[in-house]
Amino acid sequence: MTHPRYTRLIDALPSTVPFVGPEAQERAAGRPFTARLGANENGFGPSPRAIAAMAAAAGDVWKYGDSTSFELRAALAAHHDVNVPNVLVGEGIDGLLGYLCRLLIEPGDAVVTSDGAYPTFNYHVAGFGGVLHKVPYSDDHEDLDALIAKAIETGAKLIYLANPDNPMGTWHGREAIEAMIKKVPDGTLLLLDEAYVEFAPEDTAARIAADDPRVIRMRTFSKAHGMAGARVGYAIAAPELIAAFDKIRNHFGMCRISQAGALAALQDTTWQAYMRLLVAGARQRIADIAAQNGLSTLPSATNFVAIDCGGDGDFARAVLTALGDAGVFVRMPFVAPENRCIRVSVGPEPELDRFAEALPHALEAARTSRMK
Amino acid sequence: MTHPRYTRLIDALPSTVPFVGPEAQERAAGRPFTARLGANENGFGPSPRAIAAMAAAAGDVWKYGDSTSFELRAALAAHHDVNVPNVLVGEGIDGLLGYLCRLLIEPGDAVVTSDGAYPTFNYHVAGFGGVLHKVPYSDDHEDLDALIAKAIETGAKLIYLANPDNPMGTWHGREAIEAMIKKVPDGTLLLLDEAYVEFAPEDTAARIAADDPRVIRMRTFSKAHGMAGARVGYAIAAPELIAAFDKIRNHFGMCRISQAGALAALQDTTWQAYMRLLVAGARQRIADIAAQNGLSTLPSATNFVAIDCGGDGDFARAVLTALGDAGVFVRMPFVAPENRCIRVSVGPEPELDRFAEALPHALEAARTSRMK
Repeated sequence: MTHPRYTRLIDALPSTVPFVGPEAQERAAGRPFTARLGANENGFGPSPRAIAAMAAAAGDVWKYGDSTSFELRAALAAHHDVNVPNVLVGEGIDGLLGYLCRLLIEPGDAVVTSDGAYPTFNYHVAGFGGVLHKVPYSDDHEDLDALIAKAIETGAKLIYLANPDNPMGTWHGREAIEAMIKKVPDGTLLLLDEAYVEFAPEDTAARIAADDPRVIRMRTFSKAHGMAGARVGYAIAAPELIAAFDKIRNHFGMCRISQAGALAALQDTTWQAYMRLLVAGARQRIADIAAQNGLSTLPSATNFVAIDCGGDGDFARAVLTALGDAGVFVRMPFVAPENRCIRVSVGPEPELDRFAEALPHALEAARTSRMK
Repeated sequence: MTHPRYTRLIDALPSTVPFVGPEAQERAAGRPFTARLGANENGFGPSPRAIAAMAAAAGDVWKYGDSTSFELRAALAAHHDVNVPNVLVGEGIDGLLGYLCRLLIEPGDAVVTSDGAYPTFNYHVAGFGGVLHKVPYSDDHEDLDALIAKAIETGAKLIYLANPDNPMGTWHGREAIEAMIKKVPDGTLLLLDEAYVEFAPEDTAARIAADDPRVIRMRTFSKAHGMAGARVGYAIAAPELIAAFDKIRNHFGMCRISQAGALAALQDTTWQAYMRLLVAGARQRIADIAAQNGLSTLPSATNFVAIDCGGDGDFARAVLTALGDAGVFVRMPFVAPENRCIRVSVGPEPELDRFAEALPHALEAARTSRMK
């Protein structure tokens, strides 16, 4: 019998998956989580106007979505004070990361990121044969100077920077980012992932000229707009770069219902302000819960909080496992020393109550197992 | 200023788009279509149960979709009498085509298709540097023997076959397809696009062993289930091939609302039967409208009908343009002699009424312009 002949690159790739989703974990455990606080989702949900728009669009789903997402792009362009050709809408930032890697990366090309930063970006880089060069975090922050230095050293085509950072929740002010952009070497593109920036202090989002060819920024409706399952992300960059995506993207890839929901969410500025208050309150609640257990938290400009469990990665992993056994889904950073933390996403009070109830027992279980 | 450094392949790709969507055409024309019959959408819409499931899922869209689409895959596996590892759910067949090309095609690799077949497949092949070898249609049907012969001649990694065919609507019975599969040469994979097969006579879908490594079949919720805008396609193939997609796919790429809608649509077998009746009726109506204008139609096993306009490609193009000017959106085949036809998708009576009203004038306009 015959078999498909895969490319050499595919044959060499491992069958790894960046994240095991909560549903898969629930099936493996044979029971549902009672608190879903691990995937940096926004449990406060989308704007009621967005929900209504999506429900209304369901009956129209026999039509393909607009392949240019024109209305949404026009609204985003106005929102960001750029032009429509500066904006690309795609299937979540994850989808856009894949497209961008495909545009730039051939086997052997150098790419720079932080060690412990977003694994889905690394997955896409590896998927096109790129060689990842990682620099360590500095004091739980992404190290802007080290990223630039490594890009110069390796001749990188692409630098990945999340501001605010995931998984730590820390951030740099816009002046620091703007100063970094000035140092991006010739031939390098800075991918500035601003998935969480709507939760950050006002002076966090960098001001970037719409035609600056050194940077592509990415945003999403998954976090501040509470629409992770809708898969709507967007990129802002120079028109030439945005146009290049048209050579390869899945033109009719956007869900029509999601397009309608994103447009309504963008227009509901009242809900956005309300959401920032809810998320800030939940961040404080997570910090309070940590403090009640004698633990400290990192300052966060996102919809999640890194709790320092006060030990090493094994200890934090034991806490995370015990929380999971108690039905509380959280995640944790991947590398030391950041992996001394667990990462808890915001959510409504009842879910945080369950976390508050489970944490002391989880810490106790982790401490007991450490003493064995 | 610095610029991104694209891959050599990207630099060489043209900025072409497989299809200009109806919304883009409407914006260019400055007015909406009054009959949307061009994109092989299903204007009868989705099952009311699917609409209800999508509306209900809108409030839950703060959660990422299940990255394994497990429930939907389990239901599809049961429906097709295969196992879950035989089934992959993805972002429409278009998305799956892109993934499959990425798995198999490196620059210079040979791929076989029919001249005038699905341009989005060609787009993805070109996007990975594949070399397309095209065989002509035979009597408005895809030519199974010619496809196999060309694959042997070129050492193709991949053959594309749509059964039933788009854009002609013609089809082969399952025995012919099964006989073709036996002839697929070593090292070649047959991509059997069955997007329209639910509209075809019962003996059209080939029976293929679940672990047969020579074939991957693709299906969709866009056509029979009336959910084109939801972007849900799926593939059935040997587990090894299905697993290979996990190396590269956008794991969290599925819209959660679409997953819920597809599951409900699959379960609504009453609606599916009703839909087949509606579509068969609309096909007959399109044939009647053609006959009233002295035109013949091709037999169709799909949700669209190719009308032979009785002239050449230029004449059919003039008819299509005049229909567009009258607010009726249809499309047409790309190459001769199939491009003597226009392709009209099914739709509810009011839309077909507008087509019936516009067609005589469009034919008149095309004839007049031909005499100039």
